[in-house]
Amino acid sequence: MLQFDLLNTDPDSHARRGTLTLNHGVVQTPIFMPVGTYGTVKGVMPRSLEEMGAQIILGNTFHLWMRPGLDVVRHFGGLHRFEVWNKPILTDSGGFQVWSLGAMRKISEEGVKFASPVNGDKLFLTPEISMEIQTILNSDIVMQFDECTPYDTKGHITTEAEARTSMELSVRWARRCQAEFARLQNPNALFGIVQGGMFEHLREESLAQLVEMDFPGYAIGGVSVGEPKPEMLRIMAHTPHRLPAHKPRYLMGVGTPEDLVEGVAQGVDMFDCVMPTRNARNGTIFTRYGDLKIRNAKHRSDERPLDETCTCHACAGTSGVAKGAGGFSRAYLHHLDRCGEMLGPMLTTIHNLHYYLSLMAEIRAALEAGTFTEFRAQFARDRARGV
Amino acid sequence: MLQFDLLNTDPDSHARRGTLTLNHGVVQTPIFMPVGTYGTVKGVMPRSLEEMGAQIILGNTFHLWMRPGLDVVRHFGGLHRFEVWNKPILTDSGGFQVWSLGAMRKISEEGVKFASPVNGDKLFLTPEISMEIQTILNSDIVMQFDECTPYDTKGHITTEAEARTSMELSVRWARRCQAEFARLQNPNALFGIVQGGMFEHLREESLAQLVEMDFPGYAIGGVSVGEPKPEMLRIMAHTPHRLPAHKPRYLMGVGTPEDLVEGVAQGVDMFDCVMPTRNARNGTIFTRYGDLKIRNAKHRSDERPLDETCTCHACAGTSGVAKGAGGFSRAYLHHLDRCGEMLGPMLTTIHNLHYYLSLMAEIRAALEAGTFTEFRAQFARDRARGV
Repeated sequence: MLQFDLLNTDPDSHARRGTLTLNHGVVQTPIFMPVGTYGTVKGVMPRSLEEMGAQIILGNTFHLWMRPGLDVVRHFGGLHRFEVWNKPILTDSGGFQVWSLGAMRKISEEGVKFASPVNGDKLFLTPEISMEIQTILNSDIVMQFDECTPYDTKGHITTEAEARTSMELSVRWARRCQAEFARLQNPNALFGIVQGGMFEHLREESLAQLVEMDFPGYAIGGVSVGEPKPEMLRIMAHTPHRLPAHKPRYLMGVGTPEDLVEGVAQGVDMFDCVMPTRNARNGTIFTRYGDLKIRNAKHRSDERPLDETCTCHACAGTSGVAKGAGGFSRAYLHHLDRCGEMLGPMLTTIHNLHYYLSLMAEIRAALEAGTFTEFRAQFARDRARGV
Repeated sequence: MLQFDLLNTDPDSHARRGTLTLNHGVVQTPIFMPVGTYGTVKGVMPRSLEEMGAQIILGNTFHLWMRPGLDVVRHFGGLHRFEVWNKPILTDSGGFQVWSLGAMRKISEEGVKFASPVNGDKLFLTPEISMEIQTILNSDIVMQFDECTPYDTKGHITTEAEARTSMELSVRWARRCQAEFARLQNPNALFGIVQGGMFEHLREESLAQLVEMDFPGYAIGGVSVGEPKPEMLRIMAHTPHRLPAHKPRYLMGVGTPEDLVEGVAQGVDMFDCVMPTRNARNGTIFTRYGDLKIRNAKHRSDERPLDETCTCHACAGTSGVAKGAGGFSRAYLHHLDRCGEMLGPMLTTIHNLHYYLSLMAEIRAALEAGTFTEFRAQFARDRARGV
């Protein structure tokens, strides 16, 4: 099931405030979805995700198909119980990961042949198999199997003709996904994915055909695949608001805090990105007042938390030792990073995800209060201030 | 400060139940102390330590001297605020780590010269410098700087003459530590360390001289340094109960769950060991019913928690998804291990430490109830049962 209720729209942009009701619960939109590739958001306990207000997380179909394998997930009745997460889950289709294998895969009308990166087994992924896997995963939102149109291939920029061929294949695959999803009596919701590369008219053709198929939600794919930022922003400004207003819109794989705010303004309801988790592990911290590299020697003796306005476990702490000064200091996080201690990425991941989720909560509050324009201006000023 | 109150002694063994009052709180003994080398118990958040009932943790003087460095710790007024842990901390003297450098260090009457393993700087560690560092760390229990007598050196078993020379040096260093500790007006408690290798009469000489110096607590060092298990058990049966009954006794670097139970029976009050944390990261799990290798393929689809009687976050969970079946399954932990996901060691570390701390809590309860003999028998039966 999927029910999308539009609560509020911003008069000065395409931004919307809504609720998305799924089989495992209600999601307040706009929302950011932490990425849990292998059935775990890297370095975070499920209870920490709940504490920071995560409402829906991602799983990767391709990875989970490889490990633990479908027999194991089926044994647990789906991904929720296996990974001990009882709120909604969205799974991708596996298309992006197979596409990422590059030379190791061969795409035909039927599907994609490839060698397992885990054990070399010859495997075949089709729209039907993707639907079957996602049905076993029992994710609340299932993504259609698509071909992710590359921005370039070894320096060759994808031509309009190539983008059209690819987009049309994805549309045919969308139809096959829809048929198989129905045949399998999957009780969840299937999203179509708009492709078309960097060509607006191809995006419109893709969109029109998908809308005709009447999916309960739509994603915008083929962005954040290596294109220059202005290209991404151009597509983000073009496509989202053209999608049906009464259905949820998901921009795949995006992005920075600035991208999220801009994406909301363009009418996007859902985002996912590895940036907060991956950057946390590399020591890049997102804060209200800009980004911070914890590895920098200037943090060596700094008693301040990452962000004095942040209420995450890393910044605000719980032990009461350092009342007033916040939880864990920049100096301590710098030290953990320098020593390669696990607690470093554990705490910075909590902070970064908390920041992303809080940013979305602030956006929702601004949309409810009718102050989204002011919010955007304040957000830009804050981020430019410096930490 | 240090106050040790003996609450109860077992009539059938040397086991004792006590309370140890330190500057940062009260510790119920017998106790196991998790090891937090670099100011973090590897892979565990301080709040998880509190939840699992950790009462006192270790820090390593040598490591903390290298990183973050004394200026940083001094800036925070000691280790407690730096690492956000407001309960007691015990620090070792640095002697064991310097000794572990092997060929890279040179020992003289004055102290130990060595090259920093971090940046190659030539450094000198003496009883006085160790006291100065531990005063800056502000640990509740300070260990004397000693020479850890090796069991063997490249196959050469330490002779009695060598063990005597080493032991006597440690006794002279104990005197210097005591004088410097007083001069620095350190408000915490300094422990002397009994050495003497595998020679009972040397242990007795060491003990007698240290007792004459009247330390507030005593440790047994130079065990768990590569000697065969029967040798370790021989020293463990010899030395602890000969120490003053009204002072806490700490057996350094020991050991397995069986070692802890046996150590308590021999009169030990305090233990530390990297085994629960290190083994957790390597996938070896301690449970009431024996040990378990999570990497083993037989766990692939196993829905059971690591230990059905365990109340740790990994076994009992909190999310309510898997009611009855416990928190995280063996299958899921096996999967995380196989994928190299951080959440794997995070959860297994919580479990192993919780098991060690719960074992000590059960020992304390048995001592209070006067059922320690029955407890030992049941413990042995349970551990032999198999998981």
